[in-house]
Amino acid sequence: MMVAAVIGTFGNRDLVAQRALLIQTDFGLAEGSIAEMKGVAFSVDPNLRIFDITHLIPAYDVWEAAVRLHQTAPYWPPGTVFVSIVDPGVGTERRAVVVRSKTDQLFVGPDNGTFTFVAEKLGIDAVREIDERVNRLPGSDRSHTFHGRDIFAYTGARLASGAIDFDAVGPLVGSSVVELDHLAPRIASGQAEGAVVTLDQPFGNVWTNVRVGLLDSLGVRVGDTLEVTIRHQGRVAFRGRLPFVRSFGAVGRGQPLSYLNSLLDFAVALNQGSFAARYRIDKGARWGIAIRPIRR
Amino acid sequence: MMVAAVIGTFGNRDLVAQRALLIQTDFGLAEGSIAEMKGVAFSVDPNLRIFDITHLIPAYDVWEAAVRLHQTAPYWPPGTVFVSIVDPGVGTERRAVVVRSKTDQLFVGPDNGTFTFVAEKLGIDAVREIDERVNRLPGSDRSHTFHGRDIFAYTGARLASGAIDFDAVGPLVGSSVVELDHLAPRIASGQAEGAVVTLDQPFGNVWTNVRVGLLDSLGVRVGDTLEVTIRHQGRVAFRGRLPFVRSFGAVGRGQPLSYLNSLLDFAVALNQGSFAARYRIDKGARWGIAIRPIRR
Amino acid sequence: MMVAAVIGTFGNRDLVAQRALLIQTDFGLAEGSIAEMKGVAFSVDPNLRIFDITHLIPAYDVWEAAVRLHQTAPYWPPGTVFVSIVDPGVGTERRAVVVRSKTDQLFVGPDNGTFTFVAEKLGIDAVREIDERVNRLPGSDRSHTFHGRDIFAYTGARLASGAIDFDAVGPLVGSSVVELDHLAPRIASGQAEGAVVTLDQPFGNVWTNVRVGLLDSLGVRVGDTLEVTIRHQGRVAFRGRLPFVRSFGAVGRGQPLSYLNSLLDFAVALNQGSFAARYRIDKGARWGIAIRPIRR
Repeated sequence: MMVAAVIGTFGNRDLVAQRALLIQTDFGLAEGSIAEMKGVAFSVDPNLRIFDITHLIPAYDVWEAAVRLHQTAPYWPPGTVFVSIVDPGVGTERRAVVVRSKTDQLFVGPDNGTFTFVAEKLGIDAVREIDERVNRLPGSDRSHTFHGRDIFAYTGARLASGAIDFDAVGPLVGSSVVELDHLAPRIASGQAEGAVVTLDQPFGNVWTNVRVGLLDSLGVRVGDTLEVTIRHQGRVAFRGRLPFVRSFGAVGRGQPLSYLNSLLDFAVALNQGSFAARYRIDKGARWGIAIRPIRR
Repeated sequence: MMVAAVIGTFGNRDLVAQRALLIQTDFGLAEGSIAEMKGVAFSVDPNLRIFDITHLIPAYDVWEAAVRLHQTAPYWPPGTVFVSIVDPGVGTERRAVVVRSKTDQLFVGPDNGTFTFVAEKLGIDAVREIDERVNRLPGSDRSHTFHGRDIFAYTGARLASGAIDFDAVGPLVGSSVVELDHLAPRIASGQAEGAVVTLDQPFGNVWTNVRVGLLDSLGVRVGDTLEVTIRHQGRVAFRGRLPFVRSFGAVGRGQPLSYLNSLLDFAVALNQGSFAARYRIDKGARWGIAIRPIRR
Repeated sequence: MMVAAVIGTFGNRDLVAQRALLIQTDFGLAEGSIAEMKGVAFSVDPNLRIFDITHLIPAYDVWEAAVRLHQTAPYWPPGTVFVSIVDPGVGTERRAVVVRSKTDQLFVGPDNGTFTFVAEKLGIDAVREIDERVNRLPGSDRSHTFHGRDIFAYTGARLASGAIDFDAVGPLVGSSVVELDHLAPRIASGQAEGAVVTLDQPFGNVWTNVRVGLLDSLGVRVGDTLEVTIRHQGRVAFRGRLPFVRSFGAVGRGQPLSYLNSLLDFAVALNQGSFAARYRIDKGARWGIAIRPIRR
């Protein structure tokens, strides 16, 4: 059970180190829904620290939601609670869940693929389905169109504040989540393989889910040359030999390169140009990458 | 008088539960004005909890400002202070006021219609005009173009922090505010009537100011059929029989429906389509709605 | 040395008044980088107060970064830490620095012109180069493309939290910064001169770096008439006699005026119109303004 770290005692109350609540949605920034969610969280605990990831996820883009969680979570401490609301299936079969990662962070939202990269990158310790009879904003019984506020933000805030612990979320439903179709990172035939996860826009750099550990296992080092192949549904969209460098300036302007991006995942780019635009690369389930070290 | 709840004592200081300060403007997010306002509030009390509603209210759109306040306020606790800066008349006759609602929340801003729906939905307990001689950022005497920072954010922060209470704002000027012209919700001739308050974009759902209580008083229940008429300046823009359902999925794709939105107000929509676009519905003073139950 | 003000003692810890950490970038609001930076800061100190200035600075626009800092800093208290990440030269020669202003505020970022108007308006007390061997997010050694997170946000958070003080940043490198080419404000031949610093959009008001003190030194008072000349690379773009008034409404609709803007700098505008659009005025290094009082 995750408990808040007691940092002292004040009167008969324990003072606990605050855990943060992070929120991401596809609501945009032009209206009041996000402030409604924060009001619910503030009402649960006025001392809660509440932060935004982004609210500009394209409408219904579950892939993007999944990417943003795995991008940000590693930089927040154990105990942090993430609420993600990209929920095209609100009111349908999809489960409302809380996922506990192996990094002891909690992820709250619809189990619709949102946790794909959390599962892959952080690993999942346990998944509980939210029991909406007890974990629902009091008085919201007649509201059926804003689970983000009534169930997810409310439950996330209660977890972050310590009002409930993970056990109180609802029944344990295992340790796996619905995953979006994509190429998982792996080593095969002496090369590293994986998916194009996102384009680092507006720069046009191509980010993958091939983690630094896979490259390390192949013995790849800065200064090496790599044969990189990017495929769209099996068809080759790019193949070339790229230097594996520290940063963009290591090659001439407009030249291609490969590097570890800021998440320590494998990425390819042009120095001061858009790799994605030049080679018409996109992200998602149908895009794969293979990386083969050229023997020194 | 609203006082902060004392939750304990620390040395010779009382520890009080923090009240939140919320800010909305039409400034956009591209420059520094919002951070100036927050700096003023932080300087009043570095422990103040400060949140945004939205800063993307269209320039000078007082109607939209009024909508966003009544959307968010119900989800924040008593004592919360809202500062709203959509102020096309800065430097003219309009009063600078603080409104205390019957929900014991405070609303700070120009009395130009911004508080229309707060008055209608929450009810107003008292209105005070801000005495700018005492409630003005010290040293800002030569600044005449940013009341949002110098008067409204400063006064809102002092109220939220407990530095002043409502009585210290300035003279009591009654319990009513300037209201934007619009159809108030009411029961007449066995039907509920009201205004189209906002379009829930990008979905195109049509939200009204007909509260759940009015529908309850007509005996409307989920599963009923309602005759709904939407008029623009008296001319019928839509008339039809709509099922009153819990959520969108209760009807076929592209089919119209009526429901309680997340604010528990009456709304109409298409399942996975834009009601507003199909029937060319807009919001505002000239748009009215009438809802008549079809007898079972 | 700047020390946090001790406001009490709790157990064997001093309770200190929180200092704020402000962040501005050119990252946009659509992805997770800002939340990564905030996670690093939160991990340094979960009680840190973190605010945004703006993240919509146009990509690589160092001038705009410089403007936003000098716009917001005066409204935050001594001790505030500002992190600014507009860094087209990441990975090149430019220094990573912390600037201490004469207002006892700290500015963290690349020394690429970002601190131009902080230097001019607030004055610089001292500049230290960040020693990246000690002031770098632990475990980020293999990350070479996100100094904003690994070095600047981390160091800014440690300064704001009191984990380190200014002396621990790295070696003192003087009291000057790289400055963007522009016309400094001055009095010459009985007139005030300076630069067009920014356009107050969407209104089209023209803001300059001619501070109120310069106008005071010329004896300019509200009600005076001023001859204003705006030049682009020496060529006259506008010349006219403008009333110096308190606010826009002092002249007829569409009429030009001059005034002190909300930063108490000299500005020109049209009442309810765009001065910048009508006279095709832009901002930057090549735009100058001269203000000559017409003798009463």
